[in-house]
Amino acid sequence: MSTLADLISERFGIETETGRAMPADGPLAGFLGHATRRRYTDQPVDDDLLNVLLACAQSAPAKSDLQQYSIVVVRDAATRQAFADKLPNMPWVGEAPVFLVFCGDVSRGRKIAAMRGYPHANDNVDTFMNAAVDAALAMQALIGAANAAGLGCCPISHIRNDVEDAADLLGLPPGVFPVAGMCVGWPAGRAYVTLRLPPAVVVHQDRYDDSGLEDEIAAYDARRHARFPIKPESQRHSDKYGVLDVCTWSENVARQLSLPERDGFRSFLNGHGLALD
Amino acid sequence: MSTLADLISERFGIETETGRAMPADGPLAGFLGHATRRRYTDQPVDDDLLNVLLACAQSAPAKSDLQQYSIVVVRDAATRQAFADKLPNMPWVGEAPVFLVFCGDVSRGRKIAAMRGYPHANDNVDTFMNAAVDAALAMQALIGAANAAGLGCCPISHIRNDVEDAADLLGLPPGVFPVAGMCVGWPAGRAYVTLRLPPAVVVHQDRYDDSGLEDEIAAYDARRHARFPIKPESQRHSDKYGVLDVCTWSENVARQLSLPERDGFRSFLNGHGLALD
Repeated sequence: MSTLADLISERFGIETETGRAMPADGPLAGFLGHATRRRYTDQPVDDDLLNVLLACAQSAPAKSDLQQYSIVVVRDAATRQAFADKLPNMPWVGEAPVFLVFCGDVSRGRKIAAMRGYPHANDNVDTFMNAAVDAALAMQALIGAANAAGLGCCPISHIRNDVEDAADLLGLPPGVFPVAGMCVGWPAGRAYVTLRLPPAVVVHQDRYDDSGLEDEIAAYDARRHARFPIKPESQRHSDKYGVLDVCTWSENVARQLSLPERDGFRSFLNGHGLALD
Repeated sequence: MSTLADLISERFGIETETGRAMPADGPLAGFLGHATRRRYTDQPVDDDLLNVLLACAQSAPAKSDLQQYSIVVVRDAATRQAFADKLPNMPWVGEAPVFLVFCGDVSRGRKIAAMRGYPHANDNVDTFMNAAVDAALAMQALIGAANAAGLGCCPISHIRNDVEDAADLLGLPPGVFPVAGMCVGWPAGRAYVTLRLPPAVVVHQDRYDDSGLEDEIAAYDARRHARFPIKPESQRHSDKYGVLDVCTWSENVARQLSLPERDGFRSFLNGHGLALD
């Protein structure tokens, strides 16, 4: 009989006994088998089901019950096309039956403060993070619910590459910022389970301890390369660093982090009603 | 027969036909019925189950596959007590069988860049947000999985009230910052489903539109007050603003936002390896 241990072994590429006593069915198997899905059938997603999923998203916890996020459902064809045109390497942005944008929302709290006659004194990094985290909690609740319903999802943080335009397209007022787009649809093709960093790297006991990082990363690199070698066209900044026969996960991460990404994000936020004090 | 529409109606305090065709069982009902649980039985959480839940957390999507978060499992009695002592109004921090801390982690990427001989050029707000969002996605995946296994959870963002101490207690290196603690246990007592803002406020069609905000908030305030009136001891800053017979959600939100919260967070981050360029 297949058990959760089999799914966990596949997730990490390491044999484990964790979950050996639990059959591989039900919701936990769903969480462990999560895969990003970028290809969809032509079947539309029923509005009723979408609204159920959005209610699942809104059922996620929210910091201090403030609910500092908004979700934009993008149905307008021209708006969809505008997002798709900006991300030609991600055709699923235009193809997915449903496209959502999850936003942190500090605007609503500000308006509520004004409505009640109070000053708003939280234009700081803490509030910004709370809003981004609220959006992420709602996003992950929607992903979990969508997967459970048989749908597939693909988050699109790249919509922040051109964040001014994204905010314009969606009419986001000052204090509302995009966290990620989200494609949703009935999945086509096969699911690929991404190999994750081992718990030895991500999960710490009592105190943060990364003393074994170098060895763990080398072993992880080897496991990932054996399962899904990084193709030449997926090697980051190959114009600058060249194409390798063996480009490991850590090599690609280091390449990605070696050049600034979205370093205009702070200036966008500052000009968009978020001082980040 | 009970349907998802009944759960959605309860979630929003508004009659709805959304989900009327779907029976109220299975994983979607679990998402819709989510409730924060702060009281637990004495039954411990088996290590094997906890490790399965942590694997579920690690199965959540992560920005660019960078996995910029860490989870600390706090078992040491003195460390638990130190967290509990700081939050005397939250006895569940000391009582819960399991206490986790979800952290954004920019340190690992920095070390990987150094290991591979690349500079790290992303000490900016974008990376900070990505790390916080990765932590939140993992956190919500763990909550969803824990709920599905019959456990209850309570996120504790208040550990950031004394963020320097929290970082010291957990030995967080520069670049690693706490997002939230998390109590996990077998729930005792009854579940209270928090009434959420209506979809008309949180979910936008094509473009952000809060033109109906004032009326929607007034109606939401009334629904919440009818179900769970805010008790005198839960009214924010009553020393400054007094105690009201009727303290609505929006009144309490406005009070909370009227005084700075954790306005030292940026200075902590700046001194802790996160420039937020």
